[in-house]
Amino acid sequence: MPTARIQGKQLIGAEGSATNAKTFVATNPGTGTPLDPPFHEANGEEVDRAMTLASESAEFFSNTSYETRAKLLEAIADGLMDAGQELLDRCHAETALPMNRLVGERARTVNQTRMFAEMIREGSWVEAKIDHGDADRTPAPKPDVRSMLISIGPVVVFGASNFPLAISVAGTDTTTAFAAGCPVVCKAHPAHPGTCEMIGNIIADAVKATGLPAGIFSLLQGQSHEVGHALVEHPATAAVAFTGSIAGGRALFDTANRRRNPIPVYAEMGSINPVFVLPGAIEERAEQIAQAFIGSLTMGVGQFCTNPGLILIPSGEQGDRLIQLIAANAAAAAPGTMLHAGIHDAFNKGVARIKETSGVQLLSQTEGPSDQACCTIAVTDVATLRRERSLMEEIFGPCSTIVRYENADEMVEVAQAIEGQLTATLHGSDSELSEHPSLIRSLETKVGRLIFNGFPTGIEVCHAMVHGGPYPATSDAHFTSIGPAAIKRFTRPLCFQDFPNDHLPPELQDANPRCIMRMVNGVYTRES
Amino acid sequence: MPTARIQGKQLIGAEGSATNAKTFVATNPGTGTPLDPPFHEANGEEVDRAMTLASESAEFFSNTSYETRAKLLEAIADGLMDAGQELLDRCHAETALPMNRLVGERARTVNQTRMFAEMIREGSWVEAKIDHGDADRTPAPKPDVRSMLISIGPVVVFGASNFPLAISVAGTDTTTAFAAGCPVVCKAHPAHPGTCEMIGNIIADAVKATGLPAGIFSLLQGQSHEVGHALVEHPATAAVAFTGSIAGGRALFDTANRRRNPIPVYAEMGSINPVFVLPGAIEERAEQIAQAFIGSLTMGVGQFCTNPGLILIPSGEQGDRLIQLIAANAAAAAPGTMLHAGIHDAFNKGVARIKETSGVQLLSQTEGPSDQACCTIAVTDVATLRRERSLMEEIFGPCSTIVRYENADEMVEVAQAIEGQLTATLHGSDSELSEHPSLIRSLETKVGRLIFNGFPTGIEVCHAMVHGGPYPATSDAHFTSIGPAAIKRFTRPLCFQDFPNDHLPPELQDANPRCIMRMVNGVYTRES
Repeated sequence: MPTARIQGKQLIGAEGSATNAKTFVATNPGTGTPLDPPFHEANGEEVDRAMTLASESAEFFSNTSYETRAKLLEAIADGLMDAGQELLDRCHAETALPMNRLVGERARTVNQTRMFAEMIREGSWVEAKIDHGDADRTPAPKPDVRSMLISIGPVVVFGASNFPLAISVAGTDTTTAFAAGCPVVCKAHPAHPGTCEMIGNIIADAVKATGLPAGIFSLLQGQSHEVGHALVEHPATAAVAFTGSIAGGRALFDTANRRRNPIPVYAEMGSINPVFVLPGAIEERAEQIAQAFIGSLTMGVGQFCTNPGLILIPSGEQGDRLIQLIAANAAAAAPGTMLHAGIHDAFNKGVARIKETSGVQLLSQTEGPSDQACCTIAVTDVATLRRERSLMEEIFGPCSTIVRYENADEMVEVAQAIEGQLTATLHGSDSELSEHPSLIRSLETKVGRLIFNGFPTGIEVCHAMVHGGPYPATSDAHFTSIGPAAIKRFTRPLCFQDFPNDHLPPELQDANPRCIMRMVNGVYTRES
Repeated sequence: MPTARIQGKQLIGAEGSATNAKTFVATNPGTGTPLDPPFHEANGEEVDRAMTLASESAEFFSNTSYETRAKLLEAIADGLMDAGQELLDRCHAETALPMNRLVGERARTVNQTRMFAEMIREGSWVEAKIDHGDADRTPAPKPDVRSMLISIGPVVVFGASNFPLAISVAGTDTTTAFAAGCPVVCKAHPAHPGTCEMIGNIIADAVKATGLPAGIFSLLQGQSHEVGHALVEHPATAAVAFTGSIAGGRALFDTANRRRNPIPVYAEMGSINPVFVLPGAIEERAEQIAQAFIGSLTMGVGQFCTNPGLILIPSGEQGDRLIQLIAANAAAAAPGTMLHAGIHDAFNKGVARIKETSGVQLLSQTEGPSDQACCTIAVTDVATLRRERSLMEEIFGPCSTIVRYENADEMVEVAQAIEGQLTATLHGSDSELSEHPSLIRSLETKVGRLIFNGFPTGIEVCHAMVHGGPYPATSDAHFTSIGPAAIKRFTRPLCFQDFPNDHLPPELQDANPRCIMRMVNGVYTRES
């Protein structure tokens, strides 16, 4: 997959397309230099062509066997590995993410893709339910009713800038949509269009190798918002997955809901991921907390949606001690290049806004070249937070605000004041957990994931994971965008009433030929 | 529960409230006479008071035991039965629904309420998932991750006019929200406000008897749209359930999505529930089909959301025979009083529109008094349907359009042209099912429930039931509003990472003290 093959075109059902003369280039955020080649911005005709192909292949794809879809996913995973260093090099050039991080992210991407292959092969994910009929029931016969999840139709995927492999063109949204049997049209992220095209080619090759119609995958380039909104507005689009800013996610959400037939938008948008440090935790392990906090905050130049942007620390000597340790660790944090100039600008503006807020003191700001982001820690108190609610808005990057609290009530007050979050974290001794039921209850209503004595970055890809949460963390708190349950976003239940056994999908047939877990007359069983 | 107790006030946390001088009265649709007493329209202060009480009781209620919630539901079920004939009489006076229908609907309401009590007692509905940690994993330790469904917060319920017991104040939306641990604020349907108040009192009494805070239930009256929209806009509202027209549901959906923090709206709106009759079915049982079709169409004066509004019948002699039989059955259908004057007006307008449509012939229209709705059957062909898309819009009431088709392609064309539906039905021989894969595939993409050789009215309350479907049948095709799975609407997953076992909810503790079905490391089990 030589970089030379990057053509700067749309990939519409495996065909290159460049009907729009308007182009843009990617920039190497590390050097500020533009990267070849120029990319053609998709136009309305190309949007329509991609969505029409997706629509035309949807019925066929939704009725393919799980084995076929598993093979598609495995071919994508293989292709990502086969692309080797050249893919990582282009990705590094476009994102400035360190090579070891990209190697790790590729491993996660490949692993989650293979995990979905295994999951759909096993088959229980369809949530098959069977209620047997009873022709003799009075006053009316009881019908035979059976249901299972089916694919929802063509999905439009907007990848994240901060995970160019794991949450982009071959990321978890595309993988779960394919697993569910949904065609995918990806809008390439304009900050890493070359990486997107290389991965797009890998997927197109995998589609071909699996003998599937080329129309189940397209990739459109574009720097403007127009391409994205045109995709969301297209009548063939059935659902949208997005990872990015609140403004971006909300704009797509609004577009989707203005449609004549609104469609679901799964937007994972933003979070400040508050961390509440109880006194016992400081007594037990202040140094560990300070070190792990700065590690979590500055990892990947702070460019994680689960980055801890707010940390509550008690007033008094114990808290002072923790803050000194945090300052010492922060001073040692290396500055870093951010994903692109836009993110760096927004970070600088956010830091400037915090520094100008009355009642906020700067604790620590490391020094570095002006084109890099420096770890910034501010300190304030609950009274200021009460007044300056903008302190509870996300600043994407290595910046966090310490909030000193006087008592448990102030912690509860903050927990109640924050908006919906992906995560919240508690640090304390086991016995302290019992002492703060109101805090825990309040946080439960605000977050998707509650962490004890850890930090929110580093999301385990497992069945129980919830990478989601109330608005504005996401636009739909019912779902997770990471882990096996993410597939539910791209499915809906379909019910068959009184269908002859032979004409039911195998998942719903009496003999249970797939040996999947089903709910039969209200009881979970793998029996036939 | 004497009717004399109907006070025409809001019921806000068990207290009567009537701060707005504006009133309205219910009308007996059978006699056209107004019914005592006048009902005070809720105002903004009352909306705020009800939602604030709901919000204040939400945390407590969401943390009550399943046993407590089950007892609440059982007390409601008991109360509905104890209210006896007086409740049914008032309901009959406000809806003109026949007494035997109301007795049956009450039984369904009580049964579904008890079913939810049993379901939450059993406990597996929380979908507990546990992934064990591994401190020794490299390169990073694996956290212990556990998740389960929790309640979403205060729910606003808009009941249906056509099910004053089963889908109204103590209907499936309220019951499932209570089961999930969500406070409920009901907007009473203005066509049966007295029934709503009587049932509201039953619920308030049940809340009190169960020792729960009064704030978990309020009932607001109102004829204008303002009360409803104010409820949807209120910051404390977490979700909305609605059953009614597309225009009404869409308006609430739009209001909810214009909020700073959008909230889910589960609107079950409308359907024409197309029925496709294949030639073999006519050969096998033409008389049965004709009789069952007219029965389904005219039951409850056609006022069901699953009413068959479009029936495809082959051209040619066989089809002619079926149509003659339908006409004969339709001629014998008694006219009936509709739920209220507004519905009757809309029905008359819909029938007039069909009759005026060029290419449509009237097959049968029974005669009756002008204040009653008469069974109306029109006939047209696919070419006309192609041109006159309004023929595919729902007319609520006993009116259906027969569409003659020439061949299988025309059936597929209609299946592809219809919007999202609650149901579609196929009548055919077993072997014919194999001959129409495209038709079945197309219908699968359009409906929530696919019925073979039956009729869509009469919804079985069971695990596998899907009373839902793509827009505009509902506003969210992920969910059903009938059956145990309806509870999912009012829940969302919450994940605990590395929490000490003692501090986890019982559902997620190692010992599995509730003996519920859980997914542990990807495997379903009831073991500890």
